[in-house]
Amino acid sequence: MKKGFGIKNIAEMLGISVSTVSRALRDAHDINPETKEKVLALARELNFKPNKNASALASGSTKNIGVIIPFITNYYFSTVISGIQEAAFELGYNIILFVTNDEMERERNLIENLDTTSLDGLLISISANSSVVEQFETLLKDDFPIVFFDRVPKDIAASKVMQSDFEGAFIATNHLIEKGYQHIAHIAGPENMNFSKERLRGYLTALQRARIPIQEDLIIYSGFTQQHGFDDVEALLASGEKVDAIFAVNDRKAIGAILALKKAGIKVGEEIGVIGFTNDPISTIVEPNLTTVEEPAFEIGQQSCQLLIKHIKNKDYEPRSVIIPCKLINRDSA
Amino acid sequence: MKKGFGIKNIAEMLGISVSTVSRALRDAHDINPETKEKVLALARELNFKPNKNASALASGSTKNIGVIIPFITNYYFSTVISGIQEAAFELGYNIILFVTNDEMERERNLIENLDTTSLDGLLISISANSSVVEQFETLLKDDFPIVFFDRVPKDIAASKVMQSDFEGAFIATNHLIEKGYQHIAHIAGPENMNFSKERLRGYLTALQRARIPIQEDLIIYSGFTQQHGFDDVEALLASGEKVDAIFAVNDRKAIGAILALKKAGIKVGEEIGVIGFTNDPISTIVEPNLTTVEEPAFEIGQQSCQLLIKHIKNKDYEPRSVIIPCKLINRDSA
Repeated sequence: MKKGFGIKNIAEMLGISVSTVSRALRDAHDINPETKEKVLALARELNFKPNKNASALASGSTKNIGVIIPFITNYYFSTVISGIQEAAFELGYNIILFVTNDEMERERNLIENLDTTSLDGLLISISANSSVVEQFETLLKDDFPIVFFDRVPKDIAASKVMQSDFEGAFIATNHLIEKGYQHIAHIAGPENMNFSKERLRGYLTALQRARIPIQEDLIIYSGFTQQHGFDDVEALLASGEKVDAIFAVNDRKAIGAILALKKAGIKVGEEIGVIGFTNDPISTIVEPNLTTVEEPAFEIGQQSCQLLIKHIKNKDYEPRSVIIPCKLINRDSA
Repeated sequence: MKKGFGIKNIAEMLGISVSTVSRALRDAHDINPETKEKVLALARELNFKPNKNASALASGSTKNIGVIIPFITNYYFSTVISGIQEAAFELGYNIILFVTNDEMERERNLIENLDTTSLDGLLISISANSSVVEQFETLLKDDFPIVFFDRVPKDIAASKVMQSDFEGAFIATNHLIEKGYQHIAHIAGPENMNFSKERLRGYLTALQRARIPIQEDLIIYSGFTQQHGFDDVEALLASGEKVDAIFAVNDRKAIGAILALKKAGIKVGEEIGVIGFTNDPISTIVEPNLTTVEEPAFEIGQQSCQLLIKHIKNKDYEPRSVIIPCKLINRDSA
C-alpha cells in the first residue's frame, strides 16, 4: 500500500527532527508556534494524514472503543449499538465490535485475549452465563475504563447504565392488575441473570402491593427467544393452573406467548392478557398489537458511550450507576 | 494505565536487540529459531501481550477491518454484520463499525476522513444517494483492499458480493403469475439505486415472459420503510387502477402494504396477493404470514469478509463478483 508522504519526509523537507514534526501534529504544548504552523502548512500541502498507529503510540490514545455484546441481530442490541455509534461519532471515537453469541466460552476467550493497548475503553453487556468477573476486575484495577450496560455483572465496582428493570416490570404487572387480571403468570429469563431477577422482583412487588397471592407455579424460567415464550405458555396451559394474564420478560417471548394462545384458540386481550417488555417494532405487527414497556435502548447506548468517554478523559473517576426509566405502551393485548 | 512488561524489557533480559524481539514475536522468517524460542518462552512467562499499535507499525498490518453500512437496526444489515463478525473472528480480525444513517453527506465525510493506516481493508454498502465513487476509486488505485456488498456503486472495478436481486425479483413475480394474478403492481425502492433497478428488471422480465402488459402506473418508486409501503399502497388504491397483487422491494414495505390493504378491508392473499423480499422474521408474525424471497444476509456478510481478507493477504488480485442465490419462501399472503 502506498502511504504517500510520511512524518519523516516532512521532517527532512523542513530540516527539523521527526519528533518535532510529531509533536506539532499532535498539538503538544511544548512546541514553538511558528514551527507548528510550518509543519501544519506543509502537511496540508502534501495532503498528509497522520498514521494513527504512530500517534496512538505517542499519545497513549487510540480513539477506539471496544463494544462487547451478546447479539447484534435483535432489535434491542442493534438499537443500543446505534446509540453508541452516534455518541462515538460525535465525540470522534471509533467503535470496534465484538459479538459473543451469548456464549460464555467465547466471551471468556475474547476478554482474555483482548489487546487493551489498541483500545481506550470498553462497553460491555455480558453473556447470560458470564463467568469472567475476575478478568473485568483485573482490567478495572489497571485503570482501564469500562462501562457495563443492560446486562451487568453483580457486585462489581464499575460504572453501569441500565433501564429500570424493576420499575418497568412493576408498571407492567400493575397494568395487568388494573385491567382486572388476577391470575398473572410471569414467563421469565434465566434465574441467575441480574436483569431477569430485577424484572421478577418488579412482578412480585406489584402482586404483593395488590395483595394478590404469589403462585410459584405461575413463574417459568427459560431463555429469551420467541420459541421459549411459545413453549412456556404451552406448558402453562397444559399444567391446568388458572391463568388469565401473562407478563413476559421481553417482547419476543410475549410474541411466542401470543402465538401459543392463538393456536389454543384463546382470545388474546380478552380471555388472556399479555404484556411484554422492549417495544420491539414487531409489537405493532402482531395481532392483537402488543401492550408493552418501552426500553430506552438508544439512550442506553448513547449514555453509556458518553460516560465511557468521560472516564477515558478523566481516569480518576468514581464509578456511577445511571438508571433510565421505562414507560408503558398501551395497545390491545392487555 | 499499567502495561506490564514491554518488548524493551524482554530485549534487556535476554541481552538481544528490540528489533530481534519484535521479529521473533511477529514470527519473521529471518529469525534464528533458537532465539525465537527463547523470546516466546519469556513472553509467555511474563504474560506479555504485544502492543498492537507497535506491531501494526512494524508489520504494516492492523488486523482491523472497517465496515461501512447505512443502518444497523434493521434485520438485513444486522444479520450481514453478524456474518462479517463471524468470519472476521475466525480469521483473527476485528471489525470497526461505521454507520452512515443512509446520509450521503455523512458517508462522504466519513470516507474523506477515514484513517486507512489503522485499517487493513474496507467492507462497504453504500448509502441510497451515494456520491463518493471518486474517493473509492482513489483508495482502490492506492491498492487499498475494498469489497462492496449488497448496495454497490455502478461501474466500479472492485470486488462485489450480492444476492441475485434480478433472479429473486423474477422468482417473486413469477410466483404471483403462477398463482393467477394478472395486475401486479411493484412498490419499488429509489429509482437510481442499483439493486432496486435489478429487482425492477426481474419484475419486468417475468411479466414480459408471461406476455402480461407492463403498466407504468403500477410501478411506484419510494423509500424502504414500512410507512413508504403503506403510503404507496394507499396511493395505488386511490388511483383506481386495477391491482390484484403487489410485489414489494423488501419485507418492510410489504408489511406496510398488508397493513394498508387490511385497513381498506381487503383480504390479503385472497383478493390481493402480496410478496416481499428479505425474509425478515417479522414475516412470520404479520397476518397473513408473508410470502417472500429470502436474502442470504448472513452469507453475504461472511463471504464478503472472507473475500476481503483474501485480498488483504494477496494485494495482487483481480476484482471478483460473487452472486449468492435467493429462494422463495411460500406462506399465506400470495
